[in-house]
Amino acid sequence: MKSKPKFAVLGAGHGGRAIAAYLAAIGHDVTLFNRTPENIQTIKQTGGIFLTFTADLEEHLFPTDMEVHKLGRRHEHLLFPETEKIVEEDLRYIFGKIKTISSDIEKVLKDRDIIMVAVPARGHRYMAEKCAPYLKDGQLVLLNPGRCFGALEFCEIVNDYYEGKKKPDVTIAEAQTLIYACRRTKPRNVRIFAVKNSVGLAAIPSKNASHAMGLLKDVYPQFTPKDSVLETSLGNLGGIFHVPTTILNATRIDMRHNFRYYAEGITKHAASIIEDVDKERMAIARAMDVEAISARRWLHQTYDSEGADLYEAIRNTYAYRKIESPKTINHRYIWEDVPTGLVPLSSLGKQLDVSTPMIDSFIHLATSAFKKDFNIDFFKIGRTMEKLGLAGMNIDEIKKFVKTGNRN
Amino acid sequence: MKSKPKFAVLGAGHGGRAIAAYLAAIGHDVTLFNRTPENIQTIKQTGGIFLTFTADLEEHLFPTDMEVHKLGRRHEHLLFPETEKIVEEDLRYIFGKIKTISSDIEKVLKDRDIIMVAVPARGHRYMAEKCAPYLKDGQLVLLNPGRCFGALEFCEIVNDYYEGKKKPDVTIAEAQTLIYACRRTKPRNVRIFAVKNSVGLAAIPSKNASHAMGLLKDVYPQFTPKDSVLETSLGNLGGIFHVPTTILNATRIDMRHNFRYYAEGITKHAASIIEDVDKERMAIARAMDVEAISARRWLHQTYDSEGADLYEAIRNTYAYRKIESPKTINHRYIWEDVPTGLVPLSSLGKQLDVSTPMIDSFIHLATSAFKKDFNIDFFKIGRTMEKLGLAGMNIDEIKKFVKTGNRN
Repeated sequence: MKSKPKFAVLGAGHGGRAIAAYLAAIGHDVTLFNRTPENIQTIKQTGGIFLTFTADLEEHLFPTDMEVHKLGRRHEHLLFPETEKIVEEDLRYIFGKIKTISSDIEKVLKDRDIIMVAVPARGHRYMAEKCAPYLKDGQLVLLNPGRCFGALEFCEIVNDYYEGKKKPDVTIAEAQTLIYACRRTKPRNVRIFAVKNSVGLAAIPSKNASHAMGLLKDVYPQFTPKDSVLETSLGNLGGIFHVPTTILNATRIDMRHNFRYYAEGITKHAASIIEDVDKERMAIARAMDVEAISARRWLHQTYDSEGADLYEAIRNTYAYRKIESPKTINHRYIWEDVPTGLVPLSSLGKQLDVSTPMIDSFIHLATSAFKKDFNIDFFKIGRTMEKLGLAGMNIDEIKKFVKTGNRN
Repeated sequence: MKSKPKFAVLGAGHGGRAIAAYLAAIGHDVTLFNRTPENIQTIKQTGGIFLTFTADLEEHLFPTDMEVHKLGRRHEHLLFPETEKIVEEDLRYIFGKIKTISSDIEKVLKDRDIIMVAVPARGHRYMAEKCAPYLKDGQLVLLNPGRCFGALEFCEIVNDYYEGKKKPDVTIAEAQTLIYACRRTKPRNVRIFAVKNSVGLAAIPSKNASHAMGLLKDVYPQFTPKDSVLETSLGNLGGIFHVPTTILNATRIDMRHNFRYYAEGITKHAASIIEDVDKERMAIARAMDVEAISARRWLHQTYDSEGADLYEAIRNTYAYRKIESPKTINHRYIWEDVPTGLVPLSSLGKQLDVSTPMIDSFIHLATSAFKKDFNIDFFKIGRTMEKLGLAGMNIDEIKKFVKTGNRN
């Protein structure tokens, strides 16, 4: 493998755009896949993605000196062609030129060293099924992030595909969280609000985490190796933050009130509830003898936020200040975070005899809220121990399985 | 007993004021008790309570022809002395002169035929303990309303007090809901927004319901007899409406946004959740073989509201249109309705093997929200089967107990 790995980025949502634009902007060979062709049409016409950020982020974003453009009126037609929006004074941009932009997975995966899967976790199954036939020896697949047990689900699907055939020697890894706080802004743009200080990374098989780190160290020095995907999975906070915040603000969202999701949506009472949900996640980690830090400490580690309790820590998290409320609760904060965040925790808790009344409450509430429109049961469609192939295993058996990726 | 019964009203909040003012205004001898003397000082100085309502309610409120005053500028000093408020055009008022207004329970109960207990259900225990020594043969105690198992709790306290002594022959009864939708407005005023069409009433012992009906028929023809307090208790909807609505609007309430509690606080998703909570209440009633109607049908029966589902029925309930959101979640919608509404349902459900995940979810969320400020567990402080003396009883034993009020 050459010194500069070639990347495929799967998914052109918030995270996928940010990763693709960043990697391309710093000079990597990047291809971009999106399931729905319409969503990448403008990027395809432009030949890449504009990445915007405020000046203070420049140093965090780019490890080496790069020419970063100060956004001025003359560039507005590129960045904001659709609006008359007043551009913020300290906004900067950089352009990431993408080699191949396509909905043809074979084309996108051709000749790649690293496959960055940056889709809501509900899409991991789809991506695994799409990728499986084209995987090659030595490749790294990194889920950004895995939510709870994403890498395990991906692994199971690949194993199933190669059942009876020779499986390529692939490292499947997951990040504990997305490296950026970011939002797609315009059809060809993405904005990064914050870069996380430190993001856990674990691989299946476990020992390959160092291989993954070696490949990524130049582009993402923030990744830090973890013993196993149990640590990254049980350390994911998507379900912990998003589900309670969305449900406790469901009527405001339904009424189309605009509010800042974290800054105004998480009041003292809401933070108290989130802390109790988080305690159940930590109890499960403790039962598994897996290292896990509280949501409050996670904010400190990730964003340098200080706070005596979770409420204060959230209020002191700069990355959250500008993030707006969703326009509907029919949103990935429920669709992604209930089935791939809370349900696996609840299911694992049950298997370990760790009770999860708060987690279960939010699964029930989300199921009930979606009843009229979708009539689905999140407990059933979510990542349960059964679906992950972990049902009936004891702690040692689970640990051995995630370490090797093999049952025997 | 004379043809015109004498009333004591216990509690000078929304309901107590409305009941006392109405009964006094139609010519009854009424006394009024309130635990905190400061809260009745202005009423005491005035010698009674002003009751306001819109003209269209006149007919519903007063069974017989009465002189009702059209509120004009010249009366404003009596009704709204504290404000420059613009008086609604069609507002009417009537004045109820109260004989005794006191925090001395003995004085208030002296010579009374009917004791109307109109306090949040969390106060039933206190009122029972206060009243027990002064109860007399032939008296009727009516809880307005009993929430879940209020009459039973009252009965247990009275039984305990007279343990080993001769117990007076008292009928303890409960209403399924408060007869009015009403709010205290100014220090000496109360406003009635709606009068319910029909309100279930049941007594302990059960057979005394007809005695109670006889005493009340001239003043409250809306009361309809029910077989037992199981029907009124399992038919109470306070916990079903108030707890989900308050929790699902907790952040709006915390942020001090003013909104109409039912009209803007119950969106389609919230109504879907409330319907699922309500289904668990009905499943418990079915398991007990007790008649219970859905919240949607209850709105129809009570307020003539039409609607294909609960959401529509709530939107079509005129009584709810003007009701404002509370200013804090530290409110009786949680303090009353969780421990005396949801907890007894959860506890009875457990005893009957009827699962109540939605009800339990809201008990957990309320407990968690109040953790930092109060550190109480609603499951523990609520009306459990243990506290009601029903633990370990089967359905037949419970039915016999509520019928007779005696264990043997």
